[in-house]
Amino acid sequence: MARIVMKFGGTSMAGIERIRNVAMRVKREAEAGNQVAVVVSAMAGETDRLVNFCREASSLYDPREYDVVVSSGEQITAGLLAIALQSIGVKARSWLGWQLPIRTSDGHASARIADIDTVALDASLAAGEVAVIPGFQGLAAGERVTTLGRGGSDTSAVAMAAAMKADRCDIYTDVDGVYTTDPRIVPRARKLKRVTYEEMLELASVGAKVLQTRSVGLAMKEKVRVQVLSSFVDADGASEPGTLIVGEEEIDDMERQLITGVAYDKNEAKITLTAVPDRPGAVASIFTPLAEANINVDMIVQNIAHSTGSTDVTFTAPQAELARVLDVFEKQREAIGFEQLLHDTRVSKVSVVGVGMRSHAGVAATMFKTLGDRGINVQAITTSEIKVSVLIHEDETELAVRVLHTAYGLDVEDTAA
Amino acid sequence: MARIVMKFGGTSMAGIERIRNVAMRVKREAEAGNQVAVVVSAMAGETDRLVNFCREASSLYDPREYDVVVSSGEQITAGLLAIALQSIGVKARSWLGWQLPIRTSDGHASARIADIDTVALDASLAAGEVAVIPGFQGLAAGERVTTLGRGGSDTSAVAMAAAMKADRCDIYTDVDGVYTTDPRIVPRARKLKRVTYEEMLELASVGAKVLQTRSVGLAMKEKVRVQVLSSFVDADGASEPGTLIVGEEEIDDMERQLITGVAYDKNEAKITLTAVPDRPGAVASIFTPLAEANINVDMIVQNIAHSTGSTDVTFTAPQAELARVLDVFEKQREAIGFEQLLHDTRVSKVSVVGVGMRSHAGVAATMFKTLGDRGINVQAITTSEIKVSVLIHEDETELAVRVLHTAYGLDVEDTAA
Repeated sequence: MARIVMKFGGTSMAGIERIRNVAMRVKREAEAGNQVAVVVSAMAGETDRLVNFCREASSLYDPREYDVVVSSGEQITAGLLAIALQSIGVKARSWLGWQLPIRTSDGHASARIADIDTVALDASLAAGEVAVIPGFQGLAAGERVTTLGRGGSDTSAVAMAAAMKADRCDIYTDVDGVYTTDPRIVPRARKLKRVTYEEMLELASVGAKVLQTRSVGLAMKEKVRVQVLSSFVDADGASEPGTLIVGEEEIDDMERQLITGVAYDKNEAKITLTAVPDRPGAVASIFTPLAEANINVDMIVQNIAHSTGSTDVTFTAPQAELARVLDVFEKQREAIGFEQLLHDTRVSKVSVVGVGMRSHAGVAATMFKTLGDRGINVQAITTSEIKVSVLIHEDETELAVRVLHTAYGLDVEDTAA
Repeated sequence: MARIVMKFGGTSMAGIERIRNVAMRVKREAEAGNQVAVVVSAMAGETDRLVNFCREASSLYDPREYDVVVSSGEQITAGLLAIALQSIGVKARSWLGWQLPIRTSDGHASARIADIDTVALDASLAAGEVAVIPGFQGLAAGERVTTLGRGGSDTSAVAMAAAMKADRCDIYTDVDGVYTTDPRIVPRARKLKRVTYEEMLELASVGAKVLQTRSVGLAMKEKVRVQVLSSFVDADGASEPGTLIVGEEEIDDMERQLITGVAYDKNEAKITLTAVPDRPGAVASIFTPLAEANINVDMIVQNIAHSTGSTDVTFTAPQAELARVLDVFEKQREAIGFEQLLHDTRVSKVSVVGVGMRSHAGVAATMFKTLGDRGINVQAITTSEIKVSVLIHEDETELAVRVLHTAYGLDVEDTAA
């Protein structure tokens, strides 16, 4: 007997037919003798509908009331899945965030899970009931409803798995696992059997949209074995094994590759301030106001000083924040003393990720040579212990991903098919 | 300073623009120095949508999970109204059923309110906050969500008013009060300034659909002064006084009329069993199986015995139950021993209601003479202490209502308009 958390997203919960399919899948796990808790998202589109109601009611809505409104989407699907399970003979009940309770911080609309009480839940699981838990929601100290921020249901699932000491947390998505890169760009991309938390964090944050980044961080901290797998099933109602996200110690040397995957992100914007005075504190005068405006800056490049005693500073930020970035600098124009404020959204960040990089030199060199051989110009570079990212022209994204995928030996071998 | 409960139905809450109008009206009461609790329904159509989800998921749905699903409609509007109130400068917060809590029986999907804890609520009201409370929902002993059955928000409002010792419970509806009869049939119908609980109960149950019957019964038991008034406002944002529903002692003799109103109900069906053996226990053999099938029987007429030693039995039941009634009798044909099973849905029940009837004879006689003079045939009669009802042909409903309205002196006098 194992304890399993199963998590289903909004696409899997969109309508009664799909909820019935989810119920069939849960039934298989329960009948295999497992104790099962299911974490569900709202029906696809429902959270948007509720968020829009709040925005229409007031642009400055009270996040405590926003949480009351938007948490209802998961409440609905939790009740419906419990009904669907019962109708096929599976004992089940829903547990709302306040009923367990799932204690969170009081950071309404983006709360963090602090503690989950599993006393009542354990008794229910031991009695053979499947627990259906709405994702995304919790309870703050003042007994007010909270939500975890968009995409928070992945985090709910991982937190439930940690609190329940589950053997596995299965996240059902509309992809069937984590690939070495986007299969739409590289048909020879391979599904990874295993990937480390660290790699998954880098892959998630650079644009491989499989899991919410926060949930991966929590899984790493709590050592929760996460499996990403497809919510679509074969004729037997089974699904193929997906990708396991585990600690580095679980991956043996034989299967370890230098590079695990190649990711890309087209949602960055490049901003350049020209002729910034080359004096101490100049860089701080640029990035402090951005931090105060809560804008996330990623790559930063400072050119060598011109003979004129000034320098150009380039960085990237999310395209969605570009208007705010430009606004910040227009207001700080005199304080910083730059000449021109340039921006470019036709850029793309391409990254190679792999824990193997720690013990191997030359990964970055291979990347630059591979891109250079194809005439792809690198506009900025950033590195971490297990990642190298470059900023290139948007139009060259697919080419870059393909040639890097081949260069690091990630292509699947030819098959008869 | 007064304590007021304001209740708004689904039409008033259907969309953000209307919720904003509700907020303006609440603001007026709060700024007049009153302590205000607002009870809200779900947006019009929303509860139907949620009920249908449950039915689709399983025809035999668990009422505990049904309650989790359908209670979300009021949760959404409560949060949105709190946001709308704050946006126009009114301090407000939502209180979900489990937060107060509103304790109910564990009769899921049709629970009864047992007790409302107002300690936290009183502190909030004293601090000048408007309380926004989702109608229709509560909490059973096992900390599970309950709902009160369709139309339960009127009952929630009256129960809140009783628990808060409110001076008044204002029910905003799409009519502007209780009339002596349906103004669409009798343009000279008068809006009643006051009506007693007993009269309102009879008017509600015979088809004047203004207030849920259960809420009137609760108001009578708890002596809650209920006002029915229009949710539509004049240019100043005010609404005209509606109809007060109060105890009999509050209505002085001067304003007391013999008859308060004339109501009709076209949703009854007439069922006749011919040639039932005229022996002890025969009537019981007819009505016991109906009671066991939970079918509500209203008017009952037993003709005098034929010379053959048999009798005809006629009664009415809701048209919606007709198929089940016929089914019951087909199965009991031999046990009862009737000859023919006849039914007629082209009937209508017309009633005159008034507490004045208690001390005046001749009300029924006036009714029969008035109808007889116009050639309207009476098929069945039933009476209570404050009501006389007759069953007539459906086509004669409007004529009967008009002539009775005139006969009992209810028509408004001619005005210049």
